[in-house]
Amino acid sequence: MATVEELKLRVRELENELIKCKQRQSAAEDAHNRPKIDQMSAEVVDSNPYSRLMALKRMGIVDDYEFSPPSVLQLLLFDYDKVELANMNRLFFQPHQAGLSKVEAAEHTLRNINPDVAFETHNYNITTLANFTHFMDRISHGGLEEGKPVDLILSCVDNFEARMAINTACNELGQIWMESGVSENAVSGHIQLIIPGETACFACAPPLVVAANIDEKTLKREGVCAASLPTTMGVVAGLLVQNVLKYLLKFGTVSYYLGYNAMQDFFPMMAMKANPQCNDRHCRRQQEEYKKKEAERPKVEVVQEEEGEIVHEDNEWGIELVSEVTDAELQAATGAVPDLPEGITVAYTIPAEETGSGETVEESEVSLEDLMAQMRKL
Amino acid sequence: MATVEELKLRVRELENELIKCKQRQSAAEDAHNRPKIDQMSAEVVDSNPYSRLMALKRMGIVDDYEFSPPSVLQLLLFDYDKVELANMNRLFFQPHQAGLSKVEAAEHTLRNINPDVAFETHNYNITTLANFTHFMDRISHGGLEEGKPVDLILSCVDNFEARMAINTACNELGQIWMESGVSENAVSGHIQLIIPGETACFACAPPLVVAANIDEKTLKREGVCAASLPTTMGVVAGLLVQNVLKYLLKFGTVSYYLGYNAMQDFFPMMAMKANPQCNDRHCRRQQEEYKKKEAERPKVEVVQEEEGEIVHEDNEWGIELVSEVTDAELQAATGAVPDLPEGITVAYTIPAEETGSGETVEESEVSLEDLMAQMRKL
Repeated sequence: MATVEELKLRVRELENELIKCKQRQSAAEDAHNRPKIDQMSAEVVDSNPYSRLMALKRMGIVDDYEFSPPSVLQLLLFDYDKVELANMNRLFFQPHQAGLSKVEAAEHTLRNINPDVAFETHNYNITTLANFTHFMDRISHGGLEEGKPVDLILSCVDNFEARMAINTACNELGQIWMESGVSENAVSGHIQLIIPGETACFACAPPLVVAANIDEKTLKREGVCAASLPTTMGVVAGLLVQNVLKYLLKFGTVSYYLGYNAMQDFFPMMAMKANPQCNDRHCRRQQEEYKKKEAERPKVEVVQEEEGEIVHEDNEWGIELVSEVTDAELQAATGAVPDLPEGITVAYTIPAEETGSGETVEESEVSLEDLMAQMRKL
Repeated sequence: MATVEELKLRVRELENELIKCKQRQSAAEDAHNRPKIDQMSAEVVDSNPYSRLMALKRMGIVDDYEFSPPSVLQLLLFDYDKVELANMNRLFFQPHQAGLSKVEAAEHTLRNINPDVAFETHNYNITTLANFTHFMDRISHGGLEEGKPVDLILSCVDNFEARMAINTACNELGQIWMESGVSENAVSGHIQLIIPGETACFACAPPLVVAANIDEKTLKREGVCAASLPTTMGVVAGLLVQNVLKYLLKFGTVSYYLGYNAMQDFFPMMAMKANPQCNDRHCRRQQEEYKKKEAERPKVEVVQEEEGEIVHEDNEWGIELVSEVTDAELQAATGAVPDLPEGITVAYTIPAEETGSGETVEESEVSLEDLMAQMRKL
């Protein structure tokens, strides 16, 4: 049996070994790091990692990079998943990161590329009640300016429940967010800007996506994983972050909704106003507040940007699209089939059974048909 | 003083921590490699890196992955450049790779992600005569099947001369290729499929790109580096490789020309047939051969795909675009201003002085106006 002295010795040995191991690990990581940068410089030298971005300012595309050094950017990451080998085809994770949490692996890779970014990672599922409360707290107080809300939330999730959780939080807080998604057959996707009270939220109407020629039944079989194409995800991620840059840096026209159909290279755009009879009471409250603000504005300042709000009813590209979800399946899943412009169909059907987080979905007497009829009037 | 039980607990904690640290370190130091895979499996397990891709076959999008194991894919990389810190914002290089040749760094990163891919890298400039000859040899004989030509060439270069070199080689060899580019102000780009003799080559007409609201003069100043947006490059790269997958795996409609204007999220499509008076004699020869082949085909087999060949004359999106290059500048650079559909303008002007590799550009009496007039008739 081990004596106290033997055990103490063993503890000291282990502590020393652990320190050395951590030093070796940190040395291996540090070798790859560039030093932090105090001020973004526009100098055109190889050693300046920001020279290509600052050129946008010189060219008059971006007015100014308004972030305050030394925290050029702050990212809060929320994800409960772990890195898998099957992720390698489309995410920037590398094989040796398999098994790590995705937020931890992402922080590590990104920090190596850019030490000027501050990270806050949360390895949990935002849809459970305790985590949802914490998520709400962090997005309300985790902004660049201490204690203030974040500037924008990006939704890059793959299921209805997680989208609904983000939607609920953002409606309650009046937080602007951008939603994104790729269809289960991996050949279409979309991005969407949601301004609570102003544009349609996730509960106002099911999110829309370009249809693809595929039978929904082939997707929903048990034990069958969803397809993924790194290309589709890359395009959608690129469009999403481009929209984020346009929004944060104030250049170009920010898109409200942009779809991507990879089969035909078809990119439908549209905009939807919030639904006055939305299921989410916070959405309805935000709509009331938005209406009041709009009414209080001096008339001279009411300048509406129209560019992003064009709805393309006609499919003038001569491309024929077939609904991804059959009408009957849609009817069974949601009670009513929305009447959408040609070439656009519903991407996600609302699950038949309650998802557990009852807080996030309220009951409603309003049918989808009514909602869609109202949207068409807008 | 610590008890035996407390010390034992501490030893266990330290041992566990040390094991984890060593695992992380070993993962970081090891080759990071997963083993090669003999046969692409459709099995839905975390350890199968191809499960998400094979789902596309099950869903009926891809008929078959026709690559023969063990060489699932073979990549020949040509680039003379070195990795710089300023590349980190948009390429998958990492800071510790700064100074390495881009082909070497790319091979290393890609091999870690997928050991099933075979690489052949050439760290040289394809536009010098000796290298051009070697480049021609490798694309004619470096295919997956030993001694045969490659399946496809992707052009991801940033200057006129390199594009012209690829164009010259592909016209001479009858090699199908895909061209891509991002404008110098980083807010527009394009991809283009070039089938020698059938579609317009790079010498048939200047490549086209969506115009952006920027004064060309701000771009051309001495010592001013071009802007770059990781988002624009990500979208264009995604669209390019998506088109490659559609072409190689035979799904969806392969696009002939797809533009991307990031400012307005506008994606013009069109197709241009080869110009009978193209400057490149190999292009003209390929056109003759294509005509003969078409004439020899039994009538019943003449099935023309029309989807990709729609030219959109009208800009029905209500978006107003301003030419990136002023008419006067264009006139000075090329002698004639092409008459293009609204919203489309020339992306690259032909340099006034000869580029050195005289072999790649032939003289011609035909004006661009004539060429454009001919193209409009097609």
